[in-house]
Amino acid sequence: MAKVAFIGLGVMGFPMAGHLRQKGGHDVVVYNRTTAKAEAWVSQFGGALGKTPAEAAKDADFVFTCVGNDDDLRSVTTCPDGVLSSMKAGAILIDNTTASAEVARELAEAASGKGCGFIDAPVSGGQAGAENGVLTVMCGGDEETFAKAKPVIDAYARMVGLMGPVGSGQLTKMMNQICIAGVVQGLAEAIHFGKKAGLDIEKVVEVISKGAAGSWQMENRHKTMNAGTYDFGFAVDWMRKDLDIVLREAKRNGSTLPLTALVDQFYGDVQSMGGNRWDTSSLLARLERNK
Amino acid sequence: MAKVAFIGLGVMGFPMAGHLRQKGGHDVVVYNRTTAKAEAWVSQFGGALGKTPAEAAKDADFVFTCVGNDDDLRSVTTCPDGVLSSMKAGAILIDNTTASAEVARELAEAASGKGCGFIDAPVSGGQAGAENGVLTVMCGGDEETFAKAKPVIDAYARMVGLMGPVGSGQLTKMMNQICIAGVVQGLAEAIHFGKKAGLDIEKVVEVISKGAAGSWQMENRHKTMNAGTYDFGFAVDWMRKDLDIVLREAKRNGSTLPLTALVDQFYGDVQSMGGNRWDTSSLLARLERNK
Repeated sequence: MAKVAFIGLGVMGFPMAGHLRQKGGHDVVVYNRTTAKAEAWVSQFGGALGKTPAEAAKDADFVFTCVGNDDDLRSVTTCPDGVLSSMKAGAILIDNTTASAEVARELAEAASGKGCGFIDAPVSGGQAGAENGVLTVMCGGDEETFAKAKPVIDAYARMVGLMGPVGSGQLTKMMNQICIAGVVQGLAEAIHFGKKAGLDIEKVVEVISKGAAGSWQMENRHKTMNAGTYDFGFAVDWMRKDLDIVLREAKRNGSTLPLTALVDQFYGDVQSMGGNRWDTSSLLARLERNK
Repeated sequence: MAKVAFIGLGVMGFPMAGHLRQKGGHDVVVYNRTTAKAEAWVSQFGGALGKTPAEAAKDADFVFTCVGNDDDLRSVTTCPDGVLSSMKAGAILIDNTTASAEVARELAEAASGKGCGFIDAPVSGGQAGAENGVLTVMCGGDEETFAKAKPVIDAYARMVGLMGPVGSGQLTKMMNQICIAGVVQGLAEAIHFGKKAGLDIEKVVEVISKGAAGSWQMENRHKTMNAGTYDFGFAVDWMRKDLDIVLREAKRNGSTLPLTALVDQFYGDVQSMGGNRWDTSSLLARLERNK
């Protein structure tokens, strides 16, 4: 049992912090920009509430952050009243935000200056994974820090991997998002084509899903895509934020990602259609917009 | 046990005809444009050899074709000396070629004019699937004809599905190829990016392959892609032929396939690199061509 702070109680952070309290049995102090959510969390899980990130983090052995983007992350860590202004030496900052590898390295350095450890630890598995405590957590950091952090992270995870030095968790998450971009657009085009061709999409998936065309997205999303339902939680706005991080990192490391860049533009079309909160499989809605 | 003719003993047809003989126990007469291959088949499996498609097919209850493209298919079916010039009434023509839905309908009509049945039955599973007799067979045709053909097809298949009326097998195969185009290009970009980012690709796949980014291609091709090995049998030239069929059918049915069209162009680049016989995962080699 450890003293834990959790900053950012969004659709992911809220249940993750809950698992740290209930499954992990830790002392949890939470902070959220909108106080009402933090109060709701405390009344559900019985931990304590900090008025600022710094106040939530001051006694913690492990400080988790799970916010929107690089700037949100800086505002709760390195800015005044951020967690790094109060964290005690030897404590570890674990960032669950999907952010840039650059900000991960920046935070690791800032943490190191305070005698603290840092792990970048973006997750995949979506809202359902967070609620069921079965997320995949992709970590970047040194082995010693990871060894201390892993047993705590386990409270909300099914798979926790150390991918390499600081930033490697974020870079792994980027690979994940690149794969998804290709799989989903391909699947969307296939379903669009199949419907126009008069095929029974269910029957097609039954026959082809175990072979070379198969994917998690095909297994888990073809029914809802075929029905035109796009409410599975991981929103187009968030995917565009992630792809923006990917494309900036690709520019930096000299990789060329033509399909990823194209699919990012397609998600822009979905936003223009009012689909900001639709899930990522709504690339099909874009193909069908002129039907 | 039935009388079977098999036309086209390529990397797929050769072992498929073998399974009809050995696993199915059928009387098989084969024809191949290059006679040496047909002779090799007969000396291995002990069936008989026809000098023309018509001669091979004349006594058969089931006539299989497995050739390169629409025109090859017409040359062994509706052209002089083609199988339809000799097939007896009540026999069934089963076409395993990946061809257009149009030629399937054309052949079904021609077969019907002779009192014969027709099933379009393109396969997936590649050379290994053909050799092990575990192909997926996507069929189009009427239920009665399918019911007669299925037990014979079973000799080389793990999964045989009736997808709808004539042409539906081909249309299903097209959906399959569209999905593959997206999955492989996305995976290629992810690996390209990951290598540039200094990640351990094996470790990344271990962590992300069961989640939303996962695919058959990721599981089965990431190692060879990471090693730059592109000799898995399903060649770029064949994929371009298939995508050409897909894009023409899409034009006909009014679906728009931007990613599929783009990946088709990318395969054109691979051809320019001398990769005509590389397998479909060589999209990665294209991304790395300027490294």
